[in-house]
Amino acid sequence: MKIRVYYEDTDAAGIVYYANYLKFCERARSELFFSRGMLPQSEEGYFVVKHLEADYRAPAKLGDLLEVKSALIERKGASIVLEQRVLLEDESLFQMRIKLAYLHDGRPARIPPSIYSILEEG
Amino acid sequence: MKIRVYYEDTDAAGIVYYANYLKFCERARSELFFSRGMLPQSEEGYFVVKHLEADYRAPAKLGDLLEVKSALIERKGASIVLEQRVLLEDESLFQMRIKLAYLHDGRPARIPPSIYSILEEG
Amino acid sequence: MKIRVYYEDTDAAGIVYYANYLKFCERARSELFFSRGMLPQSEEGYFVVKHLEADYRAPAKLGDLLEVKSALIERKGASIVLEQRVLLEDESLFQMRIKLAYLHDGRPARIPPSIYSILEEG
Amino acid sequence: MKIRVYYEDTDAAGIVYYANYLKFCERARSELFFSRGMLPQSEEGYFVVKHLEADYRAPAKLGDLLEVKSALIERKGASIVLEQRVLLEDESLFQMRIKLAYLHDGRPARIPPSIYSILEEG
Repeated sequence: MKIRVYYEDTDAAGIVYYANYLKFCERARSELFFSRGMLPQSEEGYFVVKHLEADYRAPAKLGDLLEVKSALIERKGASIVLEQRVLLEDESLFQMRIKLAYLHDGRPARIPPSIYSILEEG
Repeated sequence: MKIRVYYEDTDAAGIVYYANYLKFCERARSELFFSRGMLPQSEEGYFVVKHLEADYRAPAKLGDLLEVKSALIERKGASIVLEQRVLLEDESLFQMRIKLAYLHDGRPARIPPSIYSILEEG
Repeated sequence: MKIRVYYEDTDAAGIVYYANYLKFCERARSELFFSRGMLPQSEEGYFVVKHLEADYRAPAKLGDLLEVKSALIERKGASIVLEQRVLLEDESLFQMRIKLAYLHDGRPARIPPSIYSILEEG
Repeated sequence: MKIRVYYEDTDAAGIVYYANYLKFCERARSELFFSRGMLPQSEEGYFVVKHLEADYRAPAKLGDLLEVKSALIERKGASIVLEQRVLLEDESLFQMRIKLAYLHDGRPARIPPSIYSILEEG
């Protein structure tokens, strides 16, 4: 997924504000559903973030056209781990592993097979 | 209400991003309710923004300690107009007039007297 | 310009937060430059927001694929007025008129013809 | 440092958007400098985020009055590790360890003693 860096994403240090890489990654996760005419949250359940580990390697700047790549690297009954990277022309600027738990009515729930196939196709 | 300018509020031009003055003003409106242990939205209804006119006079910068002042300048049955200003040491940086309509279940509703008194006390 | 509504754009009222329509419009203004491999700010000068008037007609929601349309409606030596609209399938959700002044070293400056032609082509 | 949750911090899931806890923690780091009349970036250098690990335990909601607590847990010549927690009435909602490198002209630099004492006093 391509993401342009606009003024709103930058800060007075002249680079993308550190929290905004998490926004970019969440857009990529949600777009998996939106592009299929679905919402990430349904009556069956929804994902919540439980844990993440992030590496900041080089800063993105105003006007950069970034790419976000996501891969499912761990799959359990009620949670998944994704690896997401933010790239600028093949250079990895940011990388994170994020653990998402699937909930239904606030309690852990099995991830439906239809959701898995969306996440695996990427 | 005092508001500090953090990195997240600024952009690569080195000043506060233009949309963020609207955030500062909304904080001041919501804080009227929060400071009384209330939420701005209740079973009785909630406000939605209908119109605003804003003047940008001078930019705020990282670390500035701003003040937001709000005044109720027009009062109708189901809507109000507020004037809100963002100041830095008595200099007005930003000023807007904002019209808010009161809704209940998506339809215009009379603003309860208890809400008016909160808005008037400021 | 197409803009998808992500979680970050929405708030606890379930709709797009009112300041974020200004972000969407600014993306469209900046994209005029980015799509040509340029930055909105150069050694010649940059635009600053002086005034805006906005109408909120209907709310955008999570997953909506919006379109932002911009038109140059007033043109002076050192400032312009744009009309920008945010649409969902031909329905206008948000509309604003925004006055931008062109500055060089913090002082009003004539807008270069090359910049005008970018703004007029849209 | 106390932080109120406003509409801008929440999303359509009704809770604080996951990236915004990083904003809250950055405010606390910057406020250490602002409260002393300083900026976090000076001619001597500035911090950049290199790595972070975050745990999300329970969500914050609109109107919550949160507290951010920071502790310096590792100290090297040119980098530090902070532990930052976001609390609601003694309940830890969010916790992260964040590694910050100190740079001067884009290169690693020794953290001045004056900066250390600010970080240690917290």
